[in-house]
Amino acid sequence: MSAQLDPVLAQIDAELPAALDRLSALLRIPSISTDPAFKDACDTAADWLVTDIASIGFEASKRPTPGHPMVMGHAEGAGPHLLFYGHYDVQPVDPLDLWDNDPFDPQIEDTPKGRVIRGRGTSDDKGQLMTFVEACRAWKSVHGTLPAKISLFFEGEEESGSPSLIPFMKDNAQELTADIALICDTGLFDDNTPAITTMLRGLLGEELTIEGPDKDLHSGMYGGAAINPIRVLSKIIAALHDEDGRITVPGFYDDVPELSNAQMAQWQDLGFDAKGFLADVGLTTPAGEAGRSALEMVWSRPTCEVNGITGGYSGDGFKTVLPSKASAKISFRLVGGQDPWKIREAFRKMVQDMLPPDCTVTFTDHGAGTASTMSTDNPMFEQARLALSDEWPRPAAFVGCGGSIPIAGHFLDILGMDAMLIGFGRDDDLIHSPNEKYSLESFHKGIRSWARVLDKIANG
Amino acid sequence: MSAQLDPVLAQIDAELPAALDRLSALLRIPSISTDPAFKDACDTAADWLVTDIASIGFEASKRPTPGHPMVMGHAEGAGPHLLFYGHYDVQPVDPLDLWDNDPFDPQIEDTPKGRVIRGRGTSDDKGQLMTFVEACRAWKSVHGTLPAKISLFFEGEEESGSPSLIPFMKDNAQELTADIALICDTGLFDDNTPAITTMLRGLLGEELTIEGPDKDLHSGMYGGAAINPIRVLSKIIAALHDEDGRITVPGFYDDVPELSNAQMAQWQDLGFDAKGFLADVGLTTPAGEAGRSALEMVWSRPTCEVNGITGGYSGDGFKTVLPSKASAKISFRLVGGQDPWKIREAFRKMVQDMLPPDCTVTFTDHGAGTASTMSTDNPMFEQARLALSDEWPRPAAFVGCGGSIPIAGHFLDILGMDAMLIGFGRDDDLIHSPNEKYSLESFHKGIRSWARVLDKIANG
Repeated sequence: MSAQLDPVLAQIDAELPAALDRLSALLRIPSISTDPAFKDACDTAADWLVTDIASIGFEASKRPTPGHPMVMGHAEGAGPHLLFYGHYDVQPVDPLDLWDNDPFDPQIEDTPKGRVIRGRGTSDDKGQLMTFVEACRAWKSVHGTLPAKISLFFEGEEESGSPSLIPFMKDNAQELTADIALICDTGLFDDNTPAITTMLRGLLGEELTIEGPDKDLHSGMYGGAAINPIRVLSKIIAALHDEDGRITVPGFYDDVPELSNAQMAQWQDLGFDAKGFLADVGLTTPAGEAGRSALEMVWSRPTCEVNGITGGYSGDGFKTVLPSKASAKISFRLVGGQDPWKIREAFRKMVQDMLPPDCTVTFTDHGAGTASTMSTDNPMFEQARLALSDEWPRPAAFVGCGGSIPIAGHFLDILGMDAMLIGFGRDDDLIHSPNEKYSLESFHKGIRSWARVLDKIANG
Repeated sequence: MSAQLDPVLAQIDAELPAALDRLSALLRIPSISTDPAFKDACDTAADWLVTDIASIGFEASKRPTPGHPMVMGHAEGAGPHLLFYGHYDVQPVDPLDLWDNDPFDPQIEDTPKGRVIRGRGTSDDKGQLMTFVEACRAWKSVHGTLPAKISLFFEGEEESGSPSLIPFMKDNAQELTADIALICDTGLFDDNTPAITTMLRGLLGEELTIEGPDKDLHSGMYGGAAINPIRVLSKIIAALHDEDGRITVPGFYDDVPELSNAQMAQWQDLGFDAKGFLADVGLTTPAGEAGRSALEMVWSRPTCEVNGITGGYSGDGFKTVLPSKASAKISFRLVGGQDPWKIREAFRKMVQDMLPPDCTVTFTDHGAGTASTMSTDNPMFEQARLALSDEWPRPAAFVGCGGSIPIAGHFLDILGMDAMLIGFGRDDDLIHSPNEKYSLESFHKGIRSWARVLDKIANG
């Protein structure tokens, strides 16, 4: 810890009410990226950020894309060049009647687990994004300069599939390339333990539609003689796992690595409460591969899940229809070196091979991304880990993440730079759901954490 | 054929335009029984029928029920007592935009397969019901009397589950009991071959909902560790049939009879075009039990079909949800002595036994009815068969019916009387669908057929 840090932390503490006001102003802009009705709001949120970071001293610009704009900011400083990424767009708010308050009129609330700010985007990702902005503001206001060269990169399409991201990264590769990328869109390990996410699962999304008869039939007239696509689809889904919960797509496990002993030991030390993790959602028994812990199941093992299924009549009452088609959306979470495109082909072939006569299948590609494993050899990972450990009750951990954050992989693949994922979200933040919130402790200690990380990386 | 018949047939031929006008008047009343908005229309249709049959000389009455009214009519005559059943209610007309014309403004149309009357209820069942009424009218107008004692029994709730039917039958058992019931709600075997349906499959409707996690989860966060109800449901559905297409519910085949050699031979003589039957709906291969013909599959073998399935996200695009529940609607078509209530219990136990830890299942009962097999020993069956054979190009056949017509079973179970199902519908009538039609040949020859059947039964 350098002598520079203490006055910055004091400034952050003093400035917290003003920082909350700024966050609230950003939260009041309904920047739902997936809904064209909110296109202007997305633009307004980008403008707000340009103005705000310019006021800190960043050379700021709103950058058009075919979708919502990107926001870029650059500020010189001694030390390494850090690129910070966050996103200013938010998820839709339906069903609106499940919100206790207007999702775009954020309120501070006392809860049994501490004070929170409640509203859409508080945790995902406006509140997290602003932790870094506020750390920069505090540093600049105390020292008149930043401890490192810092670029800010805010996206407005993260919640709608990031269609403009890769082209923008390719078109602006030089401007975006830094010594490391910092991403604030993840969570704490638990309320007391900060985390740096170093393993992210990849994702392969597939939709398949099985068609049999060329129209819906009456199950009295044709039942028995006509093939039923729901039955065919169910049989395919049932065959995707064996009795031990392993996925049966040929070659699926070819590039799935085992954890190193060191990584396994570190995860064991975390004392992950598998029982509580499952009990939170009404479950008792890990449902994945036999012989694996719940933490492995969600962090380091691949999965195959059915995310949706539909066919025939599913309204009230009963209709004796024999439907002409049935569909399912299936996603694979991938780890290590698994190749999503190879797995897609193997999956599609397996389905084709299972089709009975008179059935056809149509596949819809819902995206593919490899898993990312960060190279923690980069000394900035250990510097960040120590910095976070100074702020929080328990030491920071290198953790896995069951979800997919494609941007981390893009930084590596397109720009050749490592990405360090540090975030302060909590499991009960209700992101993507009604009544989303962000803990004020996460916001406050998040700002302080970034100040410490900047200090440690810049000043050692 | 008696001397009485010829002038009646001539009268029917002469009266056809007027009969079509009467049918059109009835068709213009939108008596959709399932939709409360059409309650008055159902009442109007009942009134129309009361007036019409009274004009023929029936002692007619509209009889209130907790739902839509029944219509009863009685007319004395020599010979046996025949009870004729039909229904004046119709299916909803959605989706309205798929109709070429107003479904309640019936039109006569020329088609490549002959003239038809198009509109809701033309075939199911107003057009069929009126074939019998018109036969009575012609007979009465020629001879001043009817050839048999005839009771008419018209229901207004057939398309909405017949909630008032069984109570009404029990409360009016004496009035309704005759020597035989005649039901006109089925079809020809083919355009040239009339049919008397003597085997009707029973129906057991079940809905099951599998619940796992107590809320929808993010498949990144929980995928792998949390049980997925769609997978559980798919596995259950896949297990309901074995590799030979036989249903695996324990005891399911206990009371399934084999066809008699005589029945099998008669069906073979029909020259059923299985290839064409399947080709009509885009199929080539009978999908039921190995070693059974397509005709057996739909007439004499039991089935298990999934009529609908739903779970998770099935809208546009993709959501990586791990859903808390999944549901399916499943129906069993039953034959012979299969006991729907015993099969329901065996099915539910089988599902319960397949549930993995943390999963629960809820069942919803969607009705149960046994199969009906008519006793063709009653000489009126052979009399009717001969009468129909006189009217149509090919001899009439005793056939099975894959669907379920519960009223036939009720006549036997509640009133102890056989039911004879004779109808003139065709496979392409689009009943329950947009652009329903009834062939004018079916209407005209249907009226003549009933005149012949009445003559043969009354006069030998």
